[in-house]
Amino acid sequence: MNKRVAIQGAEGSNHHKVARDFYGPSIQLIECMSFDALVSCLLDGSAAFGIMAIENTIAGSIIPNYALIDSNNLHIIGEEYLNIHHHLMALKGQQISGIKEVWSHPMALLQCKEFFKKHPHIKLVEDTDTAEVAKRISKENLMSIAAIAPKMAAEIFDLVILEDEIQTIKENATRFVIVQTAVPTNGVDQINKASLKFQLDHKRGSLAAILNVLSDCKMNLTKIQSLPVIETPWKYSFFVDITFDNYREYEKAMTIMAIMAEEFKVLGTYKNGRK
Amino acid sequence: MNKRVAIQGAEGSNHHKVARDFYGPSIQLIECMSFDALVSCLLDGSAAFGIMAIENTIAGSIIPNYALIDSNNLHIIGEEYLNIHHHLMALKGQQISGIKEVWSHPMALLQCKEFFKKHPHIKLVEDTDTAEVAKRISKENLMSIAAIAPKMAAEIFDLVILEDEIQTIKENATRFVIVQTAVPTNGVDQINKASLKFQLDHKRGSLAAILNVLSDCKMNLTKIQSLPVIETPWKYSFFVDITFDNYREYEKAMTIMAIMAEEFKVLGTYKNGRK
Repeated sequence: MNKRVAIQGAEGSNHHKVARDFYGPSIQLIECMSFDALVSCLLDGSAAFGIMAIENTIAGSIIPNYALIDSNNLHIIGEEYLNIHHHLMALKGQQISGIKEVWSHPMALLQCKEFFKKHPHIKLVEDTDTAEVAKRISKENLMSIAAIAPKMAAEIFDLVILEDEIQTIKENATRFVIVQTAVPTNGVDQINKASLKFQLDHKRGSLAAILNVLSDCKMNLTKIQSLPVIETPWKYSFFVDITFDNYREYEKAMTIMAIMAEEFKVLGTYKNGRK
Repeated sequence: MNKRVAIQGAEGSNHHKVARDFYGPSIQLIECMSFDALVSCLLDGSAAFGIMAIENTIAGSIIPNYALIDSNNLHIIGEEYLNIHHHLMALKGQQISGIKEVWSHPMALLQCKEFFKKHPHIKLVEDTDTAEVAKRISKENLMSIAAIAPKMAAEIFDLVILEDEIQTIKENATRFVIVQTAVPTNGVDQINKASLKFQLDHKRGSLAAILNVLSDCKMNLTKIQSLPVIETPWKYSFFVDITFDNYREYEKAMTIMAIMAEEFKVLGTYKNGRK
Protein backbone atom coordinates (compact mmCIF):
# COMPACT_ATOMS: atom_id res chain seq x y z
CA MET A 1 0.00 0.00 0.00
CA ASN A 2 1.27 3.45 -0.83
CA LYS A 3 2.21 5.74 2.02
CA ARG A 4 -0.40 8.40 2.80
CA VAL A 5 1.57 11.66 2.87
CA ALA A 6 -0.07 14.99 3.71
CA ILE A 7 1.47 18.14 2.23
CA GLN A 8 0.77 21.83 2.65
CA GLY A 9 -0.42 22.97 -0.75
CA ALA A 10 -1.38 21.09 -3.88
CA GLU A 11 0.04 18.59 -6.34
CA GLY A 12 3.01 20.20 -8.11
CA SER A 13 4.00 22.36 -5.13
CA ASN A 14 7.37 22.45 -3.38
CA HIS A 15 5.93 20.35 -0.57
CA HIS A 16 4.93 17.76 -3.18
CA LYS A 17 8.49 17.75 -4.54
CA VAL A 18 9.86 17.16 -1.04
CA ALA A 19 7.39 14.30 -0.48
CA ARG A 20 8.64 12.69 -3.70
CA ASP A 21 12.30 13.30 -2.88
CA PHE A 22 11.84 11.67 0.52
CA TYR A 23 9.43 8.80 -0.24
CA GLY A 24 9.79 8.30 -4.01
CA PRO A 25 6.99 8.65 -6.59
CA SER A 26 4.64 5.96 -5.22
CA ILE A 27 2.80 7.86 -2.53
CA GLN A 28 -0.82 8.68 -1.87
CA LEU A 29 -0.78 12.47 -1.76
CA ILE A 30 -3.16 14.29 0.59
CA GLU A 31 -3.42 18.00 -0.27
CA CYS A 32 -4.00 20.37 2.67
CA MET A 33 -4.64 24.07 2.19
CA SER A 34 -2.97 25.09 5.46
CA PHE A 35 -0.51 23.73 8.00
CA ASP A 36 -3.37 23.53 10.51
CA ALA A 37 -5.33 21.33 8.09
CA LEU A 38 -2.24 19.17 7.62
CA VAL A 39 -1.96 18.60 11.36
CA SER A 40 -5.68 17.72 11.53
CA CYS A 41 -5.11 15.06 8.83
CA LEU A 42 -2.35 13.55 10.94
CA LEU A 43 -4.36 13.65 14.15
CA ASP A 44 -7.48 12.04 12.65
CA GLY A 45 -5.39 9.35 10.95
CA SER A 46 -6.24 10.24 7.35
CA ALA A 47 -2.51 10.75 6.72
CA ALA A 48 0.41 8.84 8.22
CA PHE A 49 3.10 11.41 7.44
CA GLY A 50 3.19 15.17 6.94
CA ILE A 51 5.65 17.46 5.16
CA MET A 52 6.17 20.91 6.70
CA ALA A 53 8.48 23.77 5.77
CA ILE A 54 10.28 24.74 8.96
CA GLU A 55 12.86 27.40 8.05
CA ASN A 56 14.33 29.19 5.06
CA THR A 57 17.30 31.41 4.33
CA ILE A 58 15.13 34.49 3.70
CA ALA A 59 12.85 34.52 6.71
CA GLY A 60 14.61 32.21 9.18
CA SER A 61 12.52 29.86 11.31
CA ILE A 62 8.82 29.44 10.58
CA ILE A 63 7.86 29.84 14.21
CA PRO A 64 4.14 28.94 13.82
CA ASN A 65 5.15 25.52 12.45
CA TYR A 66 7.46 24.89 15.38
CA ALA A 67 4.49 25.71 17.61
CA LEU A 68 2.25 23.26 15.70
CA ILE A 69 4.79 20.44 16.07
CA ASP A 70 5.32 21.19 19.73
CA SER A 71 1.71 21.69 20.83
CA ASN A 72 0.42 18.63 18.94
CA ASN A 73 3.30 16.40 20.07
CA LEU A 74 4.30 15.50 16.53
CA HIS A 75 7.56 13.60 15.99
CA ILE A 76 10.12 14.78 13.43
CA ILE A 77 11.38 11.66 11.63
CA GLY A 78 13.30 13.23 8.76
CA GLU A 79 14.36 16.41 6.99
CA GLU A 80 14.98 17.59 3.41
CA TYR A 81 16.55 20.76 2.02
CA LEU A 82 15.23 22.33 -1.18
CA ASN A 83 16.10 25.50 -3.09
CA ILE A 84 12.86 27.33 -3.85
CA HIS A 85 12.36 28.58 -7.41
CA HIS A 86 9.34 30.58 -8.51
CA HIS A 87 8.34 30.36 -12.17
CA LEU A 88 5.59 32.30 -13.92
CA MET A 89 3.40 29.93 -15.93
CA ALA A 90 0.23 30.04 -18.03
CA LEU A 91 -1.64 28.18 -20.80
CA LYS A 92 0.39 27.24 -23.85
CA GLY A 93 0.36 29.96 -26.51
CA GLN A 94 0.13 32.73 -23.89
CA GLN A 95 2.75 35.45 -23.63
CA ILE A 96 3.58 37.70 -20.73
CA SER A 97 2.07 40.75 -22.48
CA GLY A 98 -1.29 38.95 -22.60
CA ILE A 99 -1.38 38.17 -18.87
CA LYS A 100 -3.82 40.37 -16.94
CA GLU A 101 -3.74 38.81 -13.48
CA VAL A 102 -1.52 36.52 -11.49
CA TRP A 103 -3.19 34.51 -8.73
CA SER A 104 -0.98 33.11 -6.02
CA HIS A 105 -0.24 32.66 -2.35
CA PRO A 106 0.54 36.01 -0.65
CA MET A 107 4.02 34.83 0.30
CA ALA A 108 4.90 33.92 -3.30
CA LEU A 109 3.57 37.28 -4.53
CA LEU A 110 5.68 39.03 -1.91
CA GLN A 111 8.81 37.11 -2.89
CA CYS A 112 8.37 38.09 -6.56
CA LYS A 113 7.44 41.74 -5.97
CA GLU A 114 10.44 43.20 -7.82
CA PHE A 115 9.68 41.18 -10.96
CA PHE A 116 6.08 42.42 -11.10
CA LYS A 117 7.23 46.03 -10.73
CA LYS A 118 8.58 45.63 -14.27
CA HIS A 119 5.16 44.40 -15.44
CA PRO A 120 2.71 46.89 -13.98
CA HIS A 121 -0.10 45.74 -16.31
CA ILE A 122 -0.37 42.51 -14.27
CA LYS A 123 -2.71 42.68 -11.29
CA LEU A 124 -1.65 40.63 -8.25
CA VAL A 125 -4.50 38.68 -6.67
CA GLU A 126 -4.23 36.62 -3.52
CA ASP A 127 -5.11 32.98 -3.71
CA THR A 128 -4.83 30.02 -1.36
CA ASP A 129 -1.93 28.21 -3.00
CA THR A 130 0.72 28.37 -5.73
CA ALA A 131 0.45 25.04 -7.59
CA GLU A 132 -3.33 24.77 -7.15
CA VAL A 133 -3.74 27.86 -9.35
CA ALA A 134 -1.59 26.15 -12.02
CA LYS A 135 -3.98 23.20 -11.87
CA ARG A 136 -7.03 25.44 -12.12
CA ILE A 137 -5.62 27.35 -15.10
CA SER A 138 -5.07 24.05 -16.86
CA LYS A 139 -8.40 22.39 -15.95
CA GLU A 140 -10.60 25.41 -16.58
CA ASN A 141 -8.58 26.64 -19.55
CA LEU A 142 -8.19 30.09 -17.98
CA MET A 143 -6.82 32.66 -20.45
CA SER A 144 -4.86 35.77 -19.32
CA ILE A 145 -4.21 34.30 -15.87
CA ALA A 146 -0.78 33.21 -14.66
CA ALA A 147 0.39 31.14 -11.69
CA ILE A 148 3.64 31.24 -9.72
CA ALA A 149 4.75 27.69 -9.08
CA PRO A 150 7.68 25.25 -9.24
CA LYS A 151 8.76 23.73 -12.57
CA MET A 152 7.11 20.42 -11.60
CA ALA A 153 3.68 22.10 -11.73
CA ALA A 154 4.21 23.21 -15.36
CA GLU A 155 5.10 19.62 -16.25
CA ILE A 156 2.16 18.04 -14.42
CA PHE A 157 -0.45 20.53 -15.70
CA ASP A 158 1.01 21.04 -19.18
CA LEU A 159 1.61 24.78 -18.87
CA VAL A 160 4.29 26.96 -20.43
CA ILE A 161 6.85 28.81 -18.30
CA LEU A 162 6.70 32.48 -19.32
CA GLU A 163 9.63 33.51 -17.13
CA ASP A 164 11.74 31.42 -14.78
CA GLU A 165 13.34 32.36 -11.46
CA ILE A 166 11.20 35.43 -10.85
CA GLN A 167 11.85 35.52 -7.10
CA THR A 168 13.68 38.65 -5.90
CA ILE A 169 16.20 36.80 -3.74
CA LYS A 170 17.69 34.08 -5.90
CA GLU A 171 19.05 31.90 -3.10
CA ASN A 172 16.24 30.57 -0.92
CA ALA A 173 17.14 27.24 0.62
CA THR A 174 14.21 25.88 2.58
CA ARG A 175 14.34 23.15 5.17
CA PHE A 176 11.36 20.80 5.41
CA VAL A 177 10.67 18.25 8.14
CA ILE A 178 8.74 15.00 7.89
CA VAL A 179 6.42 14.55 10.89
CA GLN A 180 4.12 11.88 12.28
CA THR A 181 1.95 11.40 15.35
CA ALA A 182 3.13 7.86 16.18
CA VAL A 183 6.21 7.43 18.33
CA PRO A 184 8.98 6.30 15.95
CA THR A 185 10.03 2.69 16.44
CA ASN A 186 12.86 2.62 13.90
CA GLY A 187 16.39 1.64 14.83
CA VAL A 188 19.06 4.19 15.57
CA ASP A 189 21.43 3.16 12.77
CA GLN A 190 21.22 6.22 10.58
CA ILE A 191 20.22 8.69 13.28
CA ASN A 192 22.73 11.54 13.60
CA LYS A 193 20.60 14.62 14.21
CA ALA A 194 18.04 15.72 16.82
CA SER A 195 15.70 18.66 17.41
CA LEU A 196 15.22 19.74 21.01
CA LYS A 197 13.04 22.19 22.85
CA PHE A 198 13.41 23.47 26.39
CA GLN A 199 12.75 26.45 28.62
CA LEU A 200 15.11 28.38 30.83
CA ASP A 201 14.64 31.06 33.41
CA HIS A 202 16.14 34.41 32.63
CA LYS A 203 19.10 33.67 34.89
CA ARG A 204 22.58 34.68 33.90
CA GLY A 205 24.57 31.81 32.42
CA SER A 206 21.66 29.35 32.22
CA LEU A 207 22.02 28.86 28.47
CA ALA A 208 25.82 28.76 28.65
CA ALA A 209 25.57 25.90 31.17
CA ILE A 210 23.32 23.89 28.83
CA LEU A 211 25.60 24.47 25.85
CA ASN A 212 28.61 23.41 27.89
CA VAL A 213 26.91 20.07 28.58
CA LEU A 214 26.10 19.57 24.90
CA SER A 215 29.67 20.42 23.94
CA ASP A 216 31.15 18.13 26.61
CA CYS A 217 28.97 15.28 25.27
CA LYS A 218 30.33 15.94 21.74
CA MET A 219 27.07 17.29 20.37
CA ASN A 220 27.41 19.86 17.52
CA LEU A 221 24.96 22.74 17.44
CA THR A 222 23.52 23.48 13.98
CA LYS A 223 20.74 25.81 15.04
CA ILE A 224 19.63 27.82 18.03
CA GLN A 225 16.66 30.11 18.36
CA SER A 226 15.29 31.79 21.46
CA LEU A 227 11.66 32.80 21.83
CA PRO A 228 10.10 34.65 24.75
CA VAL A 229 7.38 32.57 26.41
CA ILE A 230 4.40 34.86 25.81
CA GLU A 231 2.44 34.07 28.93
CA THR A 232 5.49 34.12 31.26
CA PRO A 233 7.69 37.23 31.17
CA TRP A 234 11.42 36.61 31.58
CA LYS A 235 11.13 32.96 30.62
CA TYR A 236 12.53 31.83 27.29
CA SER A 237 11.96 28.84 25.05
CA PHE A 238 14.82 27.50 22.97
CA PHE A 239 14.68 25.45 19.81
CA VAL A 240 18.02 23.75 19.25
CA ASP A 241 19.22 21.32 16.58
CA ILE A 242 22.28 19.14 17.16
CA THR A 243 24.23 16.65 15.09
CA PHE A 244 26.35 13.82 16.50
CA ASP A 245 28.39 10.76 15.50
CA ASN A 246 27.62 8.48 18.42
CA TYR A 247 24.08 7.70 19.55
CA ARG A 248 25.27 6.60 23.02
CA GLU A 249 26.77 10.03 23.61
CA TYR A 250 23.53 11.60 22.42
CA GLU A 251 21.56 9.55 24.96
CA LYS A 252 23.93 10.58 27.71
CA ALA A 253 23.54 14.26 26.78
CA MET A 254 19.76 13.95 26.82
CA THR A 255 19.76 12.42 30.30
CA ILE A 256 21.63 15.44 31.63
CA MET A 257 19.48 17.89 29.63
CA ALA A 258 16.31 16.41 31.12
CA ILE A 259 17.65 17.24 34.59
CA MET A 260 18.97 20.72 33.80
CA ALA A 261 16.29 22.25 31.55
CA GLU A 262 12.60 22.84 32.17
CA GLU A 263 9.92 21.50 29.84
CA PHE A 264 12.60 19.55 28.03
CA LYS A 265 11.40 17.66 24.97
CA VAL A 266 12.98 15.84 22.02
CA LEU A 267 10.95 16.92 18.97
CA GLY A 268 12.58 14.19 16.91
CA THR A 269 15.70 12.24 15.97
CA TYR A 270 16.53 11.62 12.31
CA LYS A 271 19.16 11.43 9.61
CA ASN A 272 20.85 14.74 8.73
CA GLY A 273 19.39 15.88 5.39
CA ARG A 274 22.28 18.20 4.54
CA LYS A 275 24.23 16.62 1.66
CA MET B 1 13.56 71.96 13.81
CA ASN B 2 11.50 68.81 13.88
CA LYS B 3 13.31 65.48 13.64
CA ARG B 4 13.12 63.87 10.19
CA VAL B 5 11.96 60.32 10.90
CA ALA B 6 11.56 57.74 8.12
CA ILE B 7 9.01 54.97 8.65
CA GLN B 8 8.07 51.89 6.69
CA GLY B 9 4.51 52.49 5.56
CA ALA B 10 2.29 55.52 5.68
CA GLU B 11 0.86 58.03 8.13
CA GLY B 12 -1.41 56.16 10.55
CA SER B 13 0.57 52.92 10.40
CA ASN B 14 2.11 51.02 13.30
CA HIS B 15 5.51 52.40 12.36
CA HIS B 16 4.03 55.90 12.64
CA LYS B 17 2.70 55.07 16.10
CA VAL B 18 6.15 53.89 17.18
CA ALA B 19 7.75 57.07 15.80
CA ARG B 20 5.32 59.12 17.88
CA ASP B 21 5.81 56.98 21.00
CA PHE B 22 9.58 57.39 20.74
CA TYR B 23 9.95 61.01 19.58
CA GLY B 24 6.62 62.62 20.51
CA PRO B 25 4.14 64.23 18.08
CA SER B 26 6.44 66.93 16.66
CA ILE B 27 8.29 65.03 13.98
CA GLN B 28 8.67 65.41 10.25
CA LEU B 29 7.41 62.06 8.96
CA ILE B 30 8.97 60.53 5.84
CA GLU B 31 6.83 57.71 4.44
CA CYS B 32 8.71 54.88 2.74
CA MET B 33 6.93 52.07 0.93
CA SER B 34 9.58 49.46 1.75
CA PHE B 35 12.39 48.85 4.22
CA ASP B 36 14.87 49.20 1.34
CA ALA B 37 13.45 52.65 0.53
CA LEU B 38 13.74 53.57 4.22
CA VAL B 39 17.42 52.66 4.26
CA SER B 40 17.96 54.72 1.06
CA CYS B 41 16.41 57.75 2.82
CA LEU B 42 18.87 57.32 5.68
CA LEU B 43 21.86 56.86 3.39
CA ASP B 44 21.11 59.90 1.22
CA GLY B 45 20.46 62.05 4.28
CA SER B 46 16.80 62.83 3.60
CA ALA B 47 15.97 61.26 6.97
CA ALA B 48 17.99 61.34 10.17
CA PHE B 49 16.29 58.41 11.88
CA GLY B 50 14.45 55.30 10.74
CA ILE B 51 11.90 53.02 12.44
CA MET B 52 12.08 49.33 11.56
CA ALA B 53 10.13 46.33 12.84
CA ILE B 54 12.72 43.74 13.81
CA GLU B 55 10.84 40.81 15.39
CA ASN B 56 7.39 39.76 16.51
CA THR B 57 5.85 37.01 18.58
CA ILE B 58 4.20 35.35 15.58
CA ALA B 59 7.02 35.11 13.08
CA GLY B 60 10.11 35.61 15.23
CA SER B 61 12.99 37.68 13.85
CA ILE B 62 12.54 39.65 10.64
CA ILE B 63 15.80 38.39 9.19
CA PRO B 64 15.83 40.65 6.09
CA ASN B 65 15.79 43.72 8.35
CA TYR B 66 18.70 42.40 10.39
CA ALA B 67 20.52 42.01 7.07
CA LEU B 68 19.69 45.61 6.06
CA ILE B 69 21.00 47.00 9.35
CA ASP B 70 24.13 44.88 9.17
CA SER B 71 25.05 45.39 5.50
CA ASN B 72 24.41 49.16 5.58
CA ASN B 73 26.22 49.63 8.89
CA LEU B 74 23.23 51.30 10.54
CA HIS B 75 23.36 51.93 14.29
CA ILE B 76 20.52 50.88 16.56
CA ILE B 77 19.94 53.72 19.03
CA GLY B 78 16.66 52.65 20.61
CA GLU B 79 13.83 50.13 20.70
CA GLU B 80 10.06 50.13 21.27
CA TYR B 81 7.56 47.30 21.82
CA LEU B 82 4.04 47.52 20.42
CA ASN B 83 1.10 45.12 20.35
CA ILE B 84 -0.20 44.96 16.78
CA HIS B 85 -3.98 45.28 16.28
CA HIS B 86 -5.66 45.00 12.90
CA HIS B 87 -8.98 46.82 12.46
CA LEU B 88 -11.25 46.74 9.42
CA MET B 89 -12.21 50.28 8.41
CA ALA B 90 -14.16 52.05 5.67
CA LEU B 91 -16.03 55.27 4.88
CA LYS B 92 -18.58 56.43 7.43
CA GLY B 93 -22.03 54.98 6.79
CA GLN B 94 -20.60 51.76 5.31
CA GLN B 95 -21.41 48.37 6.78
CA ILE B 96 -19.51 45.12 6.48
CA SER B 97 -22.20 43.63 4.21
CA GLY B 98 -21.61 46.43 1.71
CA ILE B 99 -17.84 45.87 1.46
CA LYS B 100 -16.79 44.18 -1.78
CA GLU B 101 -13.01 44.32 -1.56
CA VAL B 102 -10.36 44.81 1.08
CA TRP B 103 -7.06 46.22 -0.10
CA SER B 104 -4.05 45.70 2.14
CA HIS B 105 -0.49 44.56 2.55
CA PRO B 106 -0.13 40.78 1.93
CA MET B 107 1.12 40.22 5.48
CA ALA B 108 -1.91 41.93 7.03
CA LEU B 109 -4.27 39.93 4.77
CA LEU B 110 -2.50 36.74 5.83
CA GLN B 111 -2.76 37.60 9.52
CA CYS B 112 -6.53 38.18 9.19
CA LYS B 113 -7.29 35.14 7.02
CA GLU B 114 -9.60 33.44 9.51
CA PHE B 115 -11.76 36.53 9.86
CA PHE B 116 -12.29 36.80 6.10
CA LYS B 117 -13.27 33.13 5.87
CA LYS B 118 -16.44 34.20 7.69
CA HIS B 119 -17.02 36.91 5.06
CA PRO B 120 -16.50 35.14 1.74
CA HIS B 121 -18.20 37.95 -0.20
CA ILE B 122 -15.15 40.16 0.42
CA LYS B 123 -12.38 39.84 -2.15
CA LEU B 124 -8.82 40.19 -0.81
CA VAL B 125 -6.60 42.36 -2.98
CA GLU B 126 -2.92 42.95 -2.39
CA ASP B 127 -1.75 46.49 -1.92
CA THR B 128 1.47 48.17 -0.92
CA ASP B 129 0.55 49.25 2.59
CA THR B 130 -2.09 49.09 5.33
CA ALA B 131 -2.63 52.70 6.42
CA GLU B 132 -2.04 54.16 2.94
CA VAL B 133 -5.20 52.38 1.76
CA ALA B 134 -7.11 54.00 4.63
CA LYS B 135 -5.87 57.38 3.42
CA ARG B 136 -6.86 56.62 -0.19
CA ILE B 137 -10.36 55.48 0.82
CA SER B 138 -10.80 58.75 2.66
CA LYS B 139 -9.28 61.06 0.02
CA GLU B 140 -10.91 59.47 -3.01
CA ASN B 141 -14.18 58.71 -1.21
CA LEU B 142 -13.99 55.02 -2.18
CA MET B 143 -17.23 53.15 -1.51
CA SER B 144 -17.34 49.37 -0.88
CA ILE B 145 -13.60 49.22 -0.18
CA ALA B 146 -12.13 48.52 3.26
CA ALA B 147 -8.64 48.86 4.73
CA ILE B 148 -6.91 46.92 7.49
CA ALA B 149 -5.05 49.38 9.69
CA PRO B 150 -4.40 50.50 13.27
CA LYS B 151 -6.95 52.56 15.16
CA MET B 152 -4.84 55.67 14.66
CA ALA B 153 -5.49 55.52 10.90
CA ALA B 154 -9.28 55.61 11.43
CA GLU B 155 -8.84 58.70 13.60
CA ILE B 156 -6.52 60.52 11.19
CA PHE B 157 -8.55 59.74 8.06
CA ASP B 158 -12.01 59.97 9.62
CA LEU B 159 -13.08 56.39 8.86
CA VAL B 160 -15.37 54.06 10.78
CA ILE B 161 -14.10 50.80 12.29
CA LEU B 162 -16.39 48.02 11.01
CA GLU B 163 -14.76 45.33 13.13
CA ASP B 164 -11.87 45.57 15.56
CA GLU B 165 -9.13 43.05 16.36
CA ILE B 166 -9.63 40.95 13.24
CA GLN B 167 -6.17 39.33 13.39
CA THR B 168 -6.23 35.54 13.88
CA ILE B 169 -3.59 35.51 16.63
CA LYS B 170 -4.66 38.08 19.18
CA GLU B 171 -1.29 38.51 20.90
CA ASN B 172 1.28 39.92 18.47
CA ALA B 173 3.91 41.96 20.29
CA THR B 174 6.28 43.53 17.82
CA ARG B 175 9.69 44.95 18.58
CA PHE B 176 10.83 47.98 16.59
CA VAL B 177 14.30 49.49 16.50
CA ILE B 178 15.30 53.08 15.85
CA VAL B 179 18.28 53.29 13.50
CA GLN B 180 20.60 55.96 12.12
CA THR B 181 23.68 56.10 9.90
CA ALA B 182 25.71 58.44 12.11
CA VAL B 183 27.83 56.95 14.89
CA PRO B 184 25.98 57.75 18.15
CA THR B 185 27.74 60.31 20.30
CA ASN B 186 25.38 60.22 23.28
CA GLY B 187 26.51 59.46 26.76
CA VAL B 188 26.21 56.01 28.28
CA ASP B 189 23.95 57.01 31.16
CA GLN B 190 20.78 55.21 30.19
CA ILE B 191 22.41 52.50 28.09
CA ASN B 192 21.63 49.01 29.41
CA LYS B 193 21.11 46.89 26.30
CA ALA B 194 23.18 45.98 23.22
CA SER B 195 22.70 44.10 19.96
CA LEU B 196 25.68 42.09 18.74
CA LYS B 197 26.53 40.13 15.64
CA PHE B 198 29.36 37.67 15.11
CA GLN B 199 30.35 34.57 13.20
CA LEU B 200 31.66 31.27 14.48
CA ASP B 201 33.09 28.22 12.79
CA HIS B 202 31.11 25.04 13.13
CA LYS B 203 33.43 23.82 15.89
CA ARG B 204 32.10 22.03 18.90
CA GLY B 205 31.72 24.30 21.91
CA SER B 206 32.49 27.55 20.09
CA LEU B 207 29.16 29.13 21.03
CA ALA B 208 29.30 27.79 24.58
CA ALA B 209 32.70 29.47 25.03
CA ILE B 210 31.29 32.83 23.91
CA LEU B 211 28.25 32.53 26.18
CA ASN B 212 30.51 31.64 29.11
CA VAL B 213 32.39 34.91 28.60
CA LEU B 214 29.15 36.90 28.45
CA SER B 215 27.89 35.20 31.59
CA ASP B 216 31.21 35.73 33.44
CA CYS B 217 31.03 39.44 32.57
CA LYS B 218 27.48 39.60 34.02
CA MET B 219 25.75 40.09 30.69
CA ASN B 220 22.16 38.74 30.45
CA LEU B 221 21.09 37.16 27.18
CA THR B 222 17.62 38.27 26.01
CA LYS B 223 17.79 36.90 22.48
CA ILE B 224 19.86 34.53 20.40
CA GLN B 225 19.38 33.53 16.80
CA SER B 226 21.69 31.50 14.59
CA LEU B 227 21.72 31.84 10.80
CA PRO B 228 23.79 29.79 8.39
CA VAL B 229 26.14 32.02 6.36
CA ILE B 230 24.80 31.32 2.86
CA GLU B 231 28.02 31.65 0.95
CA THR B 232 30.12 29.69 3.48
CA PRO B 233 28.86 26.23 4.45
CA TRP B 234 29.42 25.25 8.11
CA LYS B 235 29.85 28.83 9.20
CA TYR B 236 27.14 30.46 11.32
CA SER B 237 26.17 34.02 12.08
CA PHE B 238 24.67 34.85 15.44
CA PHE B 239 22.49 37.77 16.40
CA VAL B 240 22.52 38.22 20.17
CA ASP B 241 20.91 40.81 22.45
CA ILE B 242 22.18 41.38 25.96
CA THR B 243 21.13 43.53 28.89
CA PHE B 244 23.43 44.71 31.66
CA ASP B 245 23.60 46.95 34.73
CA ASN B 246 27.15 48.20 34.44
CA TYR B 247 28.55 49.79 31.29
CA ARG B 248 32.16 49.09 32.37
CA GLU B 249 31.43 45.37 32.52
CA TYR B 250 29.80 45.62 29.11
CA GLU B 251 32.95 47.22 27.67
CA LYS B 252 35.10 44.51 29.20
CA ALA B 253 32.90 41.79 27.68
CA MET B 254 33.11 43.42 24.26
CA THR B 255 36.91 43.54 24.39
CA ILE B 256 37.01 39.78 24.92
CA MET B 257 34.30 39.14 22.31
CA ALA B 258 36.28 41.06 19.69
CA ILE B 259 39.19 38.67 20.24
CA MET B 260 37.15 35.43 20.37
CA ALA B 261 34.55 35.87 17.60
CA GLU B 262 34.98 36.51 13.89
CA GLU B 263 33.34 39.47 12.15
CA PHE B 264 32.31 40.79 15.54
CA LYS B 265 30.18 43.91 15.44
CA VAL B 266 28.06 45.93 17.87
CA LEU B 267 24.86 46.79 15.97
CA GLY B 268 23.93 49.27 18.66
CA THR B 269 23.70 50.14 22.35
CA TYR B 270 20.52 51.63 23.75
CA LYS B 271 18.01 51.78 26.59
CA ASN B 272 15.96 48.60 27.12
CA GLY B 273 12.45 49.29 25.76
CA ARG B 274 10.76 46.54 27.76
CA LYS B 275 8.62 48.18 30.44
